[in-house]
Parts: sequence; structure tokens; C-alpha cells
Amino acid sequence: MLRGNCLVAQSGGPTSVINGSLYGVITQALKENSFGKILGGIHGIKGILEGKIKDLTEVSMDLLEKVKLSPSAALGSCRYKLKDPRESTEEYEKLFKVFDENNVRYFFYIGGNDSMDSAYKIDMYAKKVGYDIKVIGIPKTIDNDLMHTDHCPGYGSVAKYVATVCMELALDSAVYGTGVINVLEVMGRNTGWIAGSAALAKEKIPDLNMLIYMPEIVFDEEKFLNDLKKAFETNNHLFVVVSEGLVNKDGDYVFNRKNSYKKDIFGHIQLGGVGDYIEQLIKANVYDKVKLTRLGFLQRCAMHYVSKTDLDEAVMAGEMAIKYALEGISGKMVTLVREDGPDYRCSTGLVELDKVCNYEKKVPLEWINEDGNFVNNDFMDYVRPLVVGEAEVPMHNGLPVYTRLF
Amino acid sequence: MLRGNCLVAQSGGPTSVINGSLYGVITQALKENSFGKILGGIHGIKGILEGKIKDLTEVSMDLLEKVKLSPSAALGSCRYKLKDPRESTEEYEKLFKVFDENNVRYFFYIGGNDSMDSAYKIDMYAKKVGYDIKVIGIPKTIDNDLMHTDHCPGYGSVAKYVATVCMELALDSAVYGTGVINVLEVMGRNTGWIAGSAALAKEKIPDLNMLIYMPEIVFDEEKFLNDLKKAFETNNHLFVVVSEGLVNKDGDYVFNRKNSYKKDIFGHIQLGGVGDYIEQLIKANVYDKVKLTRLGFLQRCAMHYVSKTDLDEAVMAGEMAIKYALEGISGKMVTLVREDGPDYRCSTGLVELDKVCNYEKKVPLEWINEDGNFVNNDFMDYVRPLVVGEAEVPMHNGLPVYTRLF
Repeated sequence: MLRGNCLVAQSGGPTSVINGSLYGVITQALKENSFGKILGGIHGIKGILEGKIKDLTEVSMDLLEKVKLSPSAALGSCRYKLKDPRESTEEYEKLFKVFDENNVRYFFYIGGNDSMDSAYKIDMYAKKVGYDIKVIGIPKTIDNDLMHTDHCPGYGSVAKYVATVCMELALDSAVYGTGVINVLEVMGRNTGWIAGSAALAKEKIPDLNMLIYMPEIVFDEEKFLNDLKKAFETNNHLFVVVSEGLVNKDGDYVFNRKNSYKKDIFGHIQLGGVGDYIEQLIKANVYDKVKLTRLGFLQRCAMHYVSKTDLDEAVMAGEMAIKYALEGISGKMVTLVREDGPDYRCSTGLVELDKVCNYEKKVPLEWINEDGNFVNNDFMDYVRPLVVGEAEVPMHNGLPVYTRLF
Repeated sequence: MLRGNCLVAQSGGPTSVINGSLYGVITQALKENSFGKILGGIHGIKGILEGKIKDLTEVSMDLLEKVKLSPSAALGSCRYKLKDPRESTEEYEKLFKVFDENNVRYFFYIGGNDSMDSAYKIDMYAKKVGYDIKVIGIPKTIDNDLMHTDHCPGYGSVAKYVATVCMELALDSAVYGTGVINVLEVMGRNTGWIAGSAALAKEKIPDLNMLIYMPEIVFDEEKFLNDLKKAFETNNHLFVVVSEGLVNKDGDYVFNRKNSYKKDIFGHIQLGGVGDYIEQLIKANVYDKVKLTRLGFLQRCAMHYVSKTDLDEAVMAGEMAIKYALEGISGKMVTLVREDGPDYRCSTGLVELDKVCNYEKKVPLEWINEDGNFVNNDFMDYVRPLVVGEAEVPMHNGLPVYTRLF
């Protein structure tokens, strides 16, 4: 029995494996054979509002396999905030007209906090107006800051990338045997999950002299400089990892260059640049030879080096979204559940969308060392299995074969 | 018949495959079985002057295989300029005392321009004082700027990395379907070999709107802005690659922030930062949404993604250095020779060290388009085969197994 069409879209900043979830949704939908058409929304809710919908029902498996192993969001993305339907219904009327015209009865939204907010509002409005649709959120974020899921698809790959980059930069800068302080600026907005993953490099290079500063710990300039001076005295080849979202005791971002305070449409402050500030601070107070690396967008699109565990779980989250929807579930996000036991195994669960949207999961303080400048073994136990395995990206004449659907 | 000991050392900035040449030297030396000991100089000539020499004769093949696939210089490196022996012999007396004490009769120096300068002076001094030693230079530089060799070990890997990063960043930033100008700052000092390699990304993503600015073409701010405005009008998803060493019509570096003019000991100006300048220029004159990525040291140590062709050739250069030395050759650098014929094949040759040191090979002007903002097919034919193939770095629990010898 065909139960109407399903629509899938992607939203927010891409991760290296966000297309894994798209692949999971489409391939599982094809397998279930329960839908009329499988539709893709181009540029997320924003594009859907404009009627930008592409029929993916006949898309070849060959192309889907390439999509799975391509960086960025293959359907395009958006940063678009739906209004509260209790305040204004205009957008929703437009959106549900598009849904109705396309007989959309299942909607899958792959995204982070803000995307879950949109999914939640769509589900709420549908219930209010009696439009029969199942809405399922599929988590993605390199920041790993979604609540009620053990971790987020996208995080394992950025952790693997960051740790490897730390190893490579540390070895590279050690060649002269002279003093040098590496500064690596990583993303993560208000949480230290990405910064903490750098500690994996120290497990591989035990004499690596590394300090990690995360937004969970108030940044105190004096303590920071004392930490560095002490560490540098012991070993003048020092590696400092800083999260873009470090905050001081007043709750302000440490890096407050005026134009860094432009807010995006969600009210988030656009970050970036804390590395330059830290570099100057170190040069003026600790040591003159500083090598700054700002990973920027590289860390969220390095498909050439993703974690296979992460990619597999991204696919699983997409597949399970289809299964849950066909069970009649709506208004929930798929979660990743870490099974008990000595070996790492991951299954899925569900959580209400409104328990996810607009919250942020921080690194537990008990996973951070007493000095507030490194993570402890609980964090390591958590992150270690997430980076395992390599995915084989199709290559042609030495370069990857990437694709997209829009 | 044993003919004394051989000594190998590394110098200058590492490349991703500089340890491939070290591996080639050591494994070929072991194979030839003609030397007493195989010695490694730690931290290049600087360390050797201090007697920092390690016996590698008994090093295991297992460790050597790991060294081959490790980033950075496994013996450490230096930036050290030997004085002209016609002006001062003090250093040379010290150096040759170390050579003599260790019965060094073969010296292999893996490096770029400046390292070839050191090798040349050592060979010259040895001949003058009648010390029997064969000195062979082995090229390495991501900059690809050594004369009389078709290309340099290290270049193929950075070209592969830069092109892939361009593909990933271009796809990532295209997701919103809104205007954006990517700026990628790459290394290359005074030549555009690295910047030009970004054009490989356009072969894979034909609608990529890309401009490339190289030091071979005088940077004219007005023309640059006009280029960008024109290109942006056609397609508002624009990708601009800039070489760190862009110069203006007066021959000055475009980016002349005061503290960027600190000179290193070779009199080279320490570059970096041109990307920030270009970013501001574009924001003020073309479009406000600019995404700047400065690859920095990442591009020379990304062992997790090297070109197999490049790695194999780095090994070959090391192996051939041993063979040439045993033929009695001295005072020369191994070169890579591109064979004639439709398929890419590479062999080795030799060139006098003094024809290499202190020269720079620029990108031929006839390989750059008329507008001076992209490369043409001659450049593409040149670079295409150099990025082919992937090397399998040993992995453990999702992270690479890297090592070093000091």
C-alpha cells in the first residue's frame, strides 16, 4: 500500500557525513517500497517554501553511492528559521500548500539544533491543522552538541580529522628541535567536544606537550598564560588547542573584535578569530615563535578522511528514520544509543524534537581535568571508538569523485 | 669491499614525502651492502656540526616502512646556512672532523635550494682539502622551484591536497545557493606551482568559478578587483586562490604588514597573511561574504593524503642517490626526468649542485592564461600525472601510526 510521498531535506552547516544520512533515507525508502515518490527538498525549508523539490525516486544506485561519499549537503542547505506558528501562520500555509501539492506525508529533516526547531514547529502546525504527516528529525552536527543522543553523526569524522592534523602539525613543527608553540583553532561554538578530540593525538604521541581550552571552562587570561609558561618550561615544543567559543568570566566571548559580533539570523554570534587573539597573547607574554592554524571549514568537509564508524552511523540514522516513520512515529529525532558492554556498539532511539531544539549539550565538567586544560580518561573512552575505520572515497586519476543532487 | 660509512640528513621545511627519500637512501644502502655503517644526521648540518649522529645500520625494516609513511622529517631538520668556505673555514674544519671521526665517505642531503647550497659548499671544501667523500643532493620541496629537474618530490602531494581541499571547500560553501567568495591562501614563496595546482579542482567540477593569482604575474589591485567583479557577476559562487608570495609592480610583496617583513637567516622574507589582506580587499570592494582559508603548514604535512606517484618518486630519488654515489659521482643533485611518450613515466638524472642552489624555477609565462588569472592546458598536462595514486598509511584504531628517528 502506497502511503503518499516522502520528502527529505538537509539544513544548517554541512558535516562530512551528512550525505550518509541522505543516502540512508533514500535507500531505505526505496527498499520499503511503501511510498509514492521520494522527493528531495533543495536548500532545505527555504527552498521547499519556494517549491524547489526534486523527484529522486528514479535516482540510480550508482549516483547514490557517490552521494554517500561526497562532502557538503548534496541537496543544498539553508539557515532559515521558521516563525513561531502561534505568532504567524503565513509561512506554514505556504509550506503546507507545497506539501499538499506534492502529496508529502513524510518529512525527514537532517540537521542540528535549529533544524530540529523547524521540524518541531512543522509537526506542531500539522497536528494543529490536521494535516496527516510524519515528521522525523535526523541529527547532524560536527559540534556534537545535541541533547539526548550519545553523540551526533558528523562528530566522529571531525574528531578523527582534528586528531590527525594535530599529529601531523606536531611532528612537522618539531623538526628543528627549537622552541615553538602551535596554536590550533577549532570549531565547536559553545562546547568543547571538537577541541577535546585533539587529545587523541597525545595517545599516539605520548610526549606531546598539549593543552586544550574549551568553552565549558571560563577562560582566565592570567591562568592561561601561567599554564603555558609552566608547560613551556618543561618542554618547549608546546601544542595549544583552542575552541572558537571560549568565554571569559563575564560570559563574553574572549575574542571580541567588533565585526566578529555580527549575529546570524538565529542570534548566534559569528565566531572565528580567537586563534589570532591567542597567538598575539602568547607572542607578547610567553614566546615569540607561534604557529597558528585555523582549521575553519576544512574540518567539516574533509570527506577524503572521514571515520567509517561515523559514516555508517549517519547512514543508519537515515535508514531508521524511514522505519520509525513507517511505524507511525512523528515529532521525534533519531538518537544514537551507545550499548552497554566492553565493545563499542551503537543502535538508535528516539527523542521528542522539542527536547532537542534550542538546547546545547556541553562536555561534562567531570570529563575535564582539574586544571581545566585537558580532558580525562572518561572523555577518551567516549571519543575513541567514534573515529575508528576509514571510508574508501572513489578516486579518479588521483582526485576524489564528488557529486551533488542540485 | 666496504668503502667507509654513509651519512644521510634532511634539511629545510619538510614535505609529506621527504621521508620517502630517506627510506630510499637507507634501504638502497642496505641492499648494496657496500658501506660500513649507515648514519643519520639529526637536525641536518646544524646537528651534524654538534656531533648528533645516529647509527641506522641496524634499524628494522618494519620501522623503516613506518618512517616512509610518516609526515615531517624523521631525522629532524634545520635552517642553517654554511658560510662561504672561501671566507671562513672554521665550520668546515669542525664538520670534517665529525666526518673523519665517523669515517663518513658518502653524504646525502635531502633538501631544497638552501640545502643544495650547503651540499655544494661541502663538496667544494672536500675537494679543496682532499677529503675523499661523495656528496649527493636529493631534491625535496613542496614549492617545486628547483631548477633542472622536471619537478620536485613533495610537489605532487601538495598539488593533490590543494586540489582536493578546493573541491571540498567549493562544494561546502555552495550549499546555501547564495553568493560567497572563497579565498584560499597557499604556499609557494616566489612561484605559482602550488597555486596553479588548484586548477585540477576545476577539471573535476567544471562549473567551478575559479581564479588563480601567482607571483609570476605582477599583482595589480585594480585589475584584480575588476577580474573578480566580472567573474562574480557571471556566477556568484567564486573561488579565488592566492599564492603567499604575490608581488606588485614595484617588486614588493603585496602583503607588507610590518612584522611580516622579518627576514629568516637566508634573507627570505617570512610570508603569510596575504589571504587576510585579499579578504579585506574583496569585502571592501566586491562582496561582503568572504570565506578565507589559509592552508599554512597543513599543506606540507598531510601524510594521510599523499600522492603515491610523488611518494614513489621520492623513494626512487633516494635509491638513485646511493647508486650514483657508488658510481663515484659527487657534487650533483638527483633530478626527476619526465620521459617522452604518451604515458607518464619518470626516471632520474643528475645536475651540478651549483646550477641548482640559489636559483628558483618559475612557472613558464606561456603556461598562464592571457588574463594572468588561471593556468592553461600545458600546465594541466604537467601537473595531472603527479597527483595520481594513494598511499596506504598504516592505521590503528582510526588514527595513523606515525614515527620518527630522533
